[in-house]
Parts: sequence; structure tokens; C-alpha cells
Amino acid sequence: MPVLKIDELQKLVTRALQASGATPSAAAAAARIVVAADAQGLASHGVSRIGQYSAFLRNGRSNPAAVPVITRSKGGACLVDAMCGMAYEACALAVATAATRAREFGVACVGVTNSNHFGAAALHLEPLAQAGLVGLAFSNSPAAMPAWGGKTPLFGTNPVAAVFPRRNQPALSIDLALSETARGKIMIAAKEGKPIPLGWAVDKDGQPTTDANAALAGSMLPAGGVKGAMLALTVELLACALTGAAFGYEADTFFVDEGNKPRLGHLFIAIDPDALAGQDAYFARTEALIEMMLQDPGVRLPGDRRRLSHDKAMRDGIQIPDALHQQLVTLASG
Amino acid sequence: MPVLKIDELQKLVTRALQASGATPSAAAAAARIVVAADAQGLASHGVSRIGQYSAFLRNGRSNPAAVPVITRSKGGACLVDAMCGMAYEACALAVATAATRAREFGVACVGVTNSNHFGAAALHLEPLAQAGLVGLAFSNSPAAMPAWGGKTPLFGTNPVAAVFPRRNQPALSIDLALSETARGKIMIAAKEGKPIPLGWAVDKDGQPTTDANAALAGSMLPAGGVKGAMLALTVELLACALTGAAFGYEADTFFVDEGNKPRLGHLFIAIDPDALAGQDAYFARTEALIEMMLQDPGVRLPGDRRRLSHDKAMRDGIQIPDALHQQLVTLASG
Repeated sequence: MPVLKIDELQKLVTRALQASGATPSAAAAAARIVVAADAQGLASHGVSRIGQYSAFLRNGRSNPAAVPVITRSKGGACLVDAMCGMAYEACALAVATAATRAREFGVACVGVTNSNHFGAAALHLEPLAQAGLVGLAFSNSPAAMPAWGGKTPLFGTNPVAAVFPRRNQPALSIDLALSETARGKIMIAAKEGKPIPLGWAVDKDGQPTTDANAALAGSMLPAGGVKGAMLALTVELLACALTGAAFGYEADTFFVDEGNKPRLGHLFIAIDPDALAGQDAYFARTEALIEMMLQDPGVRLPGDRRRLSHDKAMRDGIQIPDALHQQLVTLASG
Repeated sequence: MPVLKIDELQKLVTRALQASGATPSAAAAAARIVVAADAQGLASHGVSRIGQYSAFLRNGRSNPAAVPVITRSKGGACLVDAMCGMAYEACALAVATAATRAREFGVACVGVTNSNHFGAAALHLEPLAQAGLVGLAFSNSPAAMPAWGGKTPLFGTNPVAAVFPRRNQPALSIDLALSETARGKIMIAAKEGKPIPLGWAVDKDGQPTTDANAALAGSMLPAGGVKGAMLALTVELLACALTGAAFGYEADTFFVDEGNKPRLGHLFIAIDPDALAGQDAYFARTEALIEMMLQDPGVRLPGDRRRLSHDKAMRDGIQIPDALHQQLVTLASG
């Protein structure tokens, strides 16, 4: 398998997206985050997505000419319109704006509307942690889960992420989707003809199933039952009602290239610890909790595995499967 | 069982708390919320708690003379010090401040430190919904759940609540704790000598158990496994690291009267839809999602059952068990 340095892979991805029509800044913003996902070991949100992003730029699901703009602004609150382009440049603008506003107003809330595939949620928040800010991210995604008690998929798997900066240490980084499992795992079980555990999914009639194919025709289930369903509803409303974006049931699936402009929504919240208990108190309290957590040898800090993977990628580069590398090279050569 | 009108019960509870030493305003703020909990059918967070609150005011776990104050303030961010009193007056101050700041700055984030038992989380948020604001609430509570992979309880069951106002309709009201189940259910199983389902709790060695007594000696488990554990960690840090409050493992249990001042933390976030996509867009999007949800006959809106219970209590009053009523009367007569 080819091994590429991080900056080499970023350049290749940038060229692939530009050759598919994206603006230079949109291509570079996407390349930064998807390559960072691979560096952190999150291949499902890494350059494996570029083929589809390229298809979207060509078939109209992404607007290649999109230039994200701030359309509303008041104090700590802003709305960014991604103009139906890829999500990444709009998210970078939203997060940079959130950092500035949180420094000025103590807290910021920046929404993104008319957006697209969100990628790995916690990666968007890294600039907040680097600025010493606590960050939260919410996004919806194409419908995968029913409302509690329902049969029809309405909500996305709806990622939630949080970063908590530490003094002289890498930030705590929390990143999860609100479904019990990833759809990819069900697809693998279907391919291998294996059953899935009860609780992962329901069939098209809303009945619990262990049949992976019936699950793919039905709905994913939320993590934690009714609680996950209520959190997924909360995320839909935060990410879409506040921003005017499309709900999960209005966005066509990302499992095929064809479909509508997803017009998904995201919401970022940034909080300056210095405006509440103060930076010193915040850092001291955070370290106290981490020290207690690590007294138990079974506990690992969230984000640690991703950070170790990133450090290795910085040293050794990123391995890319042959076929994927060839696809990127072909796309990049236009 | 005696049946009391809402305002009668509020007066009785106010008198009981004042007779236990609370200031008039702290007693009235607590009475408003705990009686509202009973009205909404949430007896576990209702006037059944007053005996313990009274004990706390007398034994020093609550400071009866506490007057909550805003100790830090910057733009949309504030910190309220509950001065180790009961939580309710401090939460009312925090939420009123959040409403004012969110109107001015688009978003507000108000923390509460040195606080106490939080009560029913969503009830604190009602003034935000009435002001047309989206509200989020987070609180920690005495340690009940281990960090993921750990054996020792560190985090509380950590309630999360959200309110989403609607145009000319009661707000959506979401309220959940991040544990798989309520400790009360395990206590009932222990009392009845019945087993509990796997996944509710672990024993003191961190091993999954169906033995209710072993569970009570061990830890509750988070809803949704590792995802709930990560959300519980997020809530601890939002509610305590940002506010300087005590973590779950530093607060003595509420299952007995004796113990330390819990010094718990809460965090409220208020967002003005008008500062993002605008109030009209927000209301239209929210109604679109609700309409889709209600197309499925199995779906009930969050908060509906509590609201129906409240409407019934407004008409018919609130039934209070004899012994509890007698306890309140005795406390109130000083």
C-alpha cells in the first residue's frame, strides 16, 4: 500500500477536489479535515470519501462554486450559509467566527445552513481547543433512525462532539453518533451473511431484527433507546430549526452518489472558561477529574487513541489502499 | 389521600422550607419547581424531596442564609454562586439572566456553582421557552457511574434537558438522565428480591450483574454504553469545570441525609432563534419536523405526558400521600 506524508496527501486531495470543480479554498479546507481523519485512524471519514465528494461536485449535490458567507450576526450568534457547497470551508468559517465571538462575548453559537456531509465532528472543533475554548458541535445527517415509537426514519445518526482544552496537554476530544452502531457494521454483516445483535436496528415494519438485510431496509436504532432518540431529536432541532437547514428526512442518502442537495445543518457552541469560573479554575478542575479517572487502569481518555494515531501519521505517513490511491491520482489528473 | 390545589401546596412547601431556616425567596423558588414536578407527574422530584431539603437546611448540607449572586459576567456569559444554598433560587436567577443576555447577545451561557440537588431539569428551562428561546440545561449529581472502562463511580447520572418553543403551542420539552435506568428502580428490585436486567448496573468489582443488591453496592451504567459514558463526562466538565463546582465523586450521596455540602454545578445555554435563521424560519422548521413525527401514530411528543398531567393538576389539584402531607404540615408548623 502506498504511504503518503500528511502534506502530500492533502495536496493530492486538494487537486482531486479542484479537478472536480471545487474552489481552491473549499478544496483545501476539505483536504485538511479528511486527511486529519485518516491521520487519526478514522478512515470511514477520511479520503475514502473523496470519490463521493467528487461525484457530488459533478452531479450537483454540492455546489462547486460555493463561497460560504455569514448571513446573520448578532453578538455571540451567527449564521453561516454554506451555499450548498461541501461542509468543510463553511465549518471552518463558523468555528473561526465562534472563537472570535466567544472571546468577545464569553460564549458564541454559530450555525451552518445549506451544508453537506459533516465529516468527523470533533475535527472541526480543534481550533477552539487550540484557542483555549470549550467547544460543542452538533450536526444532522440523512434520515437513518425513527422518532421514538415510530417506524419511518426521520433523524440522522446525528453526531455530537465536544472538546475541552487542557493546560499543556492535548485537549479531551469526545465524538459520537447517536445511533447504537454504525451503518457500516450492518453492511458488513449483510455482506458476510451474518446476523446482527438485537438492538442495532428494526425492519421496515419497525420490528426488532437480527437480519442484517432487513435492517438495511429498515431503520437504525438510537444508542440508549428512548434517551438516544430524544437526543437525536434535540440535535435535529439545534442543527436545523435554528439554522433553517433540511431535516434528516429531507436529505437523500449518502450511500449512493445520486440525490438532492442535502442542505444539512450544523451548530457550533464555543464557551470561554475565562468568562465563567476563570481559566485557572477551569484547568485545575479539569485536571482533578482526569487524575481521578486515570486512577482506574481500565480508563482511557477520549481522543487518546486518535491522537496516538495522529502522532504516528506525522512520523510515518498515512497508508492508503492501492485502489483508493489510484482513484485520487486519477481524479487529481482531471 | 389529600388533594391540594397547586397554590395551596406551594404555600405549604414554602412554609415548610422557611420553618427549616430557608429565606423566603429561596423557599418560594424551591416550592415553585418541586410542586411543578408533582403537577407534571414527576413525584420523584416533587414534594417528596422536601423532608430531605429540610434536613439539609438544618444539618448544614444546605446554607439556609444563602443569597445567590452573579459573581462573574462578560457579554453572554455569567457565573452564579448559589452560596451552598438550595439550587432553585440560583437556577431561577441563572435562567432569568440567560434570557436577558440571549436577547441582547443572541446566545447566553450561565453557570451555577456551589449548588445542590437540581430537581427536574426541564422545569428550570420553562421561562426560556416562554420567552421564545431555545434552552439547554446540564447538571452533575453525586457519583453513580464509572468512567468508561472504570470500576469506581465518578460521574453523576447527569441530567440533560432541552426546550424548544413552538408558535401558539406548548414547547417541546426533553429531559433525561444519562444512566440506563433510575436508581430507584434498582432499589425497588432489591426490596422485592427480584433480579435486574443486564446492562443496568455493575457490581463493586465492575462486573455486570443482575443482582439488585450487588448493583446498589456497585455502580449504575450509562445509557447507550460508551456513548452515555462520554456524554456523562461531557456534562461533568460543562457543569463543573466551567463553573468551579464539585464533581460527582466529591459530592456525598443524596440517599441519606448526612453528608457534605454537595457544591454541585449546573450550566444553562439559551439561544435566540431570531439571531440565527430568524424566528419565523425557526417556527416553520420546527412545525415541519413535528408534523412528520406525528404522521406515525406511535410517536408522542416529548413533554406531552407531563403537560397533560399538569393540565389535570391545574383542574383537579395534586394528590399527596397521607404520610407525606402530614410530614409537610408538621415541618410547616415549625
